[in-house]
Amino acid sequence: MNEDELVAAIAAVAGPSNARVRLGIGDDAAIWQPSRSHRSVITTDVLIEDVHFTRAWMSLHDIGVRAMAANLSDVAAMGGRPVLTTVAIGVPATITGDMLLECYRGLADTARSCGAAVVGGDLSRAPVLTISITVVGEVRPSNVKRRDGARPGDVLAVTGPLGASRAGLTHLRGEVVLEGAVADAALRAFRTPVARCDEGRFLGASRHVHAMMDCSDGLSTDLTRLVRASGAGARVEWVPAAEAASVAAAALGRSVDAFVLAGGEDFELLIAVAPRAFAHLSARFDARFGRPLLRLGVVEADERLVVVKQGVEEPLSPSGWDHFS
Amino acid sequence: MNEDELVAAIAAVAGPSNARVRLGIGDDAAIWQPSRSHRSVITTDVLIEDVHFTRAWMSLHDIGVRAMAANLSDVAAMGGRPVLTTVAIGVPATITGDMLLECYRGLADTARSCGAAVVGGDLSRAPVLTISITVVGEVRPSNVKRRDGARPGDVLAVTGPLGASRAGLTHLRGEVVLEGAVADAALRAFRTPVARCDEGRFLGASRHVHAMMDCSDGLSTDLTRLVRASGAGARVEWVPAAEAASVAAAALGRSVDAFVLAGGEDFELLIAVAPRAFAHLSARFDARFGRPLLRLGVVEADERLVVVKQGVEEPLSPSGWDHFS
Repeated sequence: MNEDELVAAIAAVAGPSNARVRLGIGDDAAIWQPSRSHRSVITTDVLIEDVHFTRAWMSLHDIGVRAMAANLSDVAAMGGRPVLTTVAIGVPATITGDMLLECYRGLADTARSCGAAVVGGDLSRAPVLTISITVVGEVRPSNVKRRDGARPGDVLAVTGPLGASRAGLTHLRGEVVLEGAVADAALRAFRTPVARCDEGRFLGASRHVHAMMDCSDGLSTDLTRLVRASGAGARVEWVPAAEAASVAAAALGRSVDAFVLAGGEDFELLIAVAPRAFAHLSARFDARFGRPLLRLGVVEADERLVVVKQGVEEPLSPSGWDHFS
Repeated sequence: MNEDELVAAIAAVAGPSNARVRLGIGDDAAIWQPSRSHRSVITTDVLIEDVHFTRAWMSLHDIGVRAMAANLSDVAAMGGRPVLTTVAIGVPATITGDMLLECYRGLADTARSCGAAVVGGDLSRAPVLTISITVVGEVRPSNVKRRDGARPGDVLAVTGPLGASRAGLTHLRGEVVLEGAVADAALRAFRTPVARCDEGRFLGASRHVHAMMDCSDGLSTDLTRLVRASGAGARVEWVPAAEAASVAAAALGRSVDAFVLAGGEDFELLIAVAPRAFAHLSARFDARFGRPLLRLGVVEADERLVVVKQGVEEPLSPSGWDHFS
């Protein structure tokens, strides 16, 4: 079983939901209805030392920043506003109380930057540093964005260029040596990514955005999930690479696709937008955030996924992160 | 730093909460206000193989049951009704997909038994089985029970006898050999504990219950937390031991206190009740659940904690579970 198959089997075991739950397993976050006119969203991640991060590569503070950003991003991807978060940490004996508080500082400051408070959690001994975060957010019923709403003809776009985080990882692994501002940008993207909270709420408020999710597992994998959930396909015409990804790819003599399509952890938002509304939405986005939406391609009615390279269509298969493949 | 000191330092790092949060770090669960007339509660636990459980001692199904019961219990202890849950699991290579689904079955069935649905989660590789659960519940604003509301003169009581779970653990460790129905009861208490969801809602609905929490870390530790949070002390006159605890203690030639005061994981609810209302509340509880409330002692105005043994007062100090002492 790969990860998506396992998730499907788990959803079957979890069984039917109750009346308060509006969206269960399978999207960036689940949605429930605390009262008739309110919707809450909830998302959980677990990050494990030497699986998701290595202590040699970043400070405990930055490990906290990165872990929290990943969860805030899932709430943003639903069109929601993060409200509160709980943090359960498993602590190995090599981490002192002061080091743990450094990690919490990163977690709490990052949560606060998106308006969320750390309200509880749990502490335990563990063989390796284990950080499990849950974020709860709020969203107006009319602003909820799921991944299954894309329609044939919709424009596919992202909120920023991709691949910088993977470039940072490649640099830290010693596979490539980046320098100066490019190295700084790559390391910043990897160590202290920023969840697109304001962007998510802005896009959530547009009825022309039919589907949204975050790019956390690599564009090829995330895009596949979005269009499959929507019963559609996609034609990708351009993939916007971050400068650090282009530089790293050139230095390695490899295609930038490995960074952009398979990279992940960029936390830009991936959207499907009504085609006639795209130019206007992108202009409004630019006016608000100082950068346009980046057009990747279009949603297609038939379920195949292709990427156009030098005018030739190639099949696009999910090459991003899968813990169980 | 011990665990309580670390939690206090973390609460300071977490900083101020936002207006929606009514109760932050430090109780069984946090409380927030999704809309004016609603309150939601949220609690998180992380359970780690060979820290909280050992696979040799129980099936993956039962590991799931136990992990979920612990979290449902925290919602029950606030007077709340569990609504939904998310589960993040770190999976070592020795656990197959089918084994993982067995664990999910235990998690999901237990959640459903208290009315909660599994709505999301996360999967990752991990060096040991790591289960992180968040449960969200609902509670009427008037029914919220915190641990800091106990008043001098209040009767302290629990919803059932204590120590059976620790007796089961002692048996599994081979320190004592229990037999027959006693062994069954001890193993059931340890492997498949039951969260007191209905009891928590019943007690939450009584205005005479001034404080409530669950007995998850051992009565001495939990009682200390409750009365300290309330700015009070306690005089414990009787500790109700489960039969399995008494049998195991006798076989070991030890006091049953090690099971009851230090044991933990029984998930009975600990309450402080207005003294004039106790007899009536206990009778109503008995009529509903088929067993009375068990009176432990009284809340005292001065902040010392004592336990009376053969007519002699002894200081009661927290001897329960502390990951960081």
